[in-house]
Amino acid sequence: MSEFRKDPLSNRWIITLDDKTFIPTTGRALPADLLEKDDNCPFCPGNEDKTGKEIYRVDSSKGAWSIRVVPNNNPYLQIETQLKKKGDAIYDIIAGTGANEVIIETPLHNGGFDNISQEQAGELIKVYRSRMCDLLKDARLEYILIFKNKGARAGANLAHPHSQLMAMPVIPKTISDEMTEAEQYYKFKTRCPFCDTLEAELASRSRLIKESENFISFVPFASRTPFEVWIMPKHHTSHFYTINDPMSAELGELLKDSITRVNKALNHPPYNYMIHTAPAKSPEIPFFHWHIEILPRVKSIAGFEWGSGFYINPTLPEESAEYLRGL
Amino acid sequence: MSEFRKDPLSNRWIITLDDKTFIPTTGRALPADLLEKDDNCPFCPGNEDKTGKEIYRVDSSKGAWSIRVVPNNNPYLQIETQLKKKGDAIYDIIAGTGANEVIIETPLHNGGFDNISQEQAGELIKVYRSRMCDLLKDARLEYILIFKNKGARAGANLAHPHSQLMAMPVIPKTISDEMTEAEQYYKFKTRCPFCDTLEAELASRSRLIKESENFISFVPFASRTPFEVWIMPKHHTSHFYTINDPMSAELGELLKDSITRVNKALNHPPYNYMIHTAPAKSPEIPFFHWHIEILPRVKSIAGFEWGSGFYINPTLPEESAEYLRGL
Repeated sequence: MSEFRKDPLSNRWIITLDDKTFIPTTGRALPADLLEKDDNCPFCPGNEDKTGKEIYRVDSSKGAWSIRVVPNNNPYLQIETQLKKKGDAIYDIIAGTGANEVIIETPLHNGGFDNISQEQAGELIKVYRSRMCDLLKDARLEYILIFKNKGARAGANLAHPHSQLMAMPVIPKTISDEMTEAEQYYKFKTRCPFCDTLEAELASRSRLIKESENFISFVPFASRTPFEVWIMPKHHTSHFYTINDPMSAELGELLKDSITRVNKALNHPPYNYMIHTAPAKSPEIPFFHWHIEILPRVKSIAGFEWGSGFYINPTLPEESAEYLRGL
Repeated sequence: MSEFRKDPLSNRWIITLDDKTFIPTTGRALPADLLEKDDNCPFCPGNEDKTGKEIYRVDSSKGAWSIRVVPNNNPYLQIETQLKKKGDAIYDIIAGTGANEVIIETPLHNGGFDNISQEQAGELIKVYRSRMCDLLKDARLEYILIFKNKGARAGANLAHPHSQLMAMPVIPKTISDEMTEAEQYYKFKTRCPFCDTLEAELASRSRLIKESENFISFVPFASRTPFEVWIMPKHHTSHFYTINDPMSAELGELLKDSITRVNKALNHPPYNYMIHTAPAKSPEIPFFHWHIEILPRVKSIAGFEWGSGFYINPTLPEESAEYLRGL
């Protein structure tokens, strides 16, 4: 039974588990040369019975599946749990209601954004949207986070390409902070800070990687890691789920392009990406754009970063961008 | 030349370097069996000329040094840089003014909180205080962060026991967030949230590890990692540097005790600790306690954590505390 717990000092929520089997690990690298199929991999074709009950699937033209959505076998959150909030002395607790799904991105064990087709990448975006729209019907859920961990160092336990979805009864601190800051900017300047960022990046072009009809990819001005890349829609929209089919295809293409460049630049580093979108019940808001943040994990996060919230980035974002543009 | 850069979306500051030699690494473990002395280690006795000009030292009763403070050889910040703030389109920049010092905690290459004396641990606290008081005289500096990275995974490049000090012209986001949240709590309840935490922990005792005359060590209610430990003074004080000599000795003893327990529990894990103290120019404030946060680095930080600000902790804090108490 898991719990959400709020630290009253920072307003940071965490989830505690009661996992008797947990063994701390210092991480291990994933094998460099993967096969197209691994008989022991629960996400490979033929092993469909090793996952929980399929939630969603996309079929390929050849009749087999091309994308599958299944429950996380060790879920942090369960949809069947009743939403229950309580206090304990000065502390706040919420039962771990929610959902934790795994999106298997391709049948290929050794697949990835380098070798999947643009169409497959576009389909993946549509699956993200579809799962998000489905879960938004549950009024208990305040936020749906979609993210990918690639490589052990970035938190992935399995090599087979997959993303994850966490649907939660609270708004994550990163998002509420981002929104609070954006709102303050908006109150002060009566402009959306994301629109301003977009305009600044399109004007300077020094950190721009690629521009398509509806999106840009760029290295943010204050990147936390070398070769950090953001993808942002050109038109102001708060919710990722409003994306239509042609834009999904375009976004898939740009996501594939961005990650392929990062893979070339850093020789397939561990990385994370996450979709930042407005909270589930929020209306369209004038100061928030949804966007995707891609973070290569090429540096340890040291005490300084933990203690300060600063990140030390040893490369200039403009040079990262120039290098990525050239690939 | 380094720069502070502020992300206008999150108000998060980072430091960018222009480091042409940077090579991304996926981390490497430190050798398990260290010798008492390593001829190639710049922090070992006999190699004093391999560090920059000594800033501070404590002599042992035998005439040799027992603690040394030297400049970081690859400083992120330099005190000689003029404080200069500027704008670039919508972005804000500050030149990398500040200081970055290394505190060599012991002459023993294989030293650590397990095998240094209580007196040595107390002296270390006094050195922290002394360096902080010295740097507080520089009016350009807004914050002085003292932290320790132990093990490659926690960001340490050298095995020889050392801590670091970063003195900065801006207040780190972690601290300003912590203060903003604490102030809101104070406005709402007219009580300090740290005092309330102290009282709750002393009343429940379920997460308490040890209590001494002036301090407690405990596992926080919403721990981010298994076996996270905080040390907090029992009396309300905002600034770490106000600690006197007897309290320094007592704190050193409790820090040694806490880390020795964590080392036993997790077999010498990589860890970070940091002193959270009020900003340099802040007066004593009614809603903030200085404290030390010790974070064992036993889990990767995955996309979910980065994207959400949540941390998934696979152990119950109460069980961590019970285990640590028993060691």
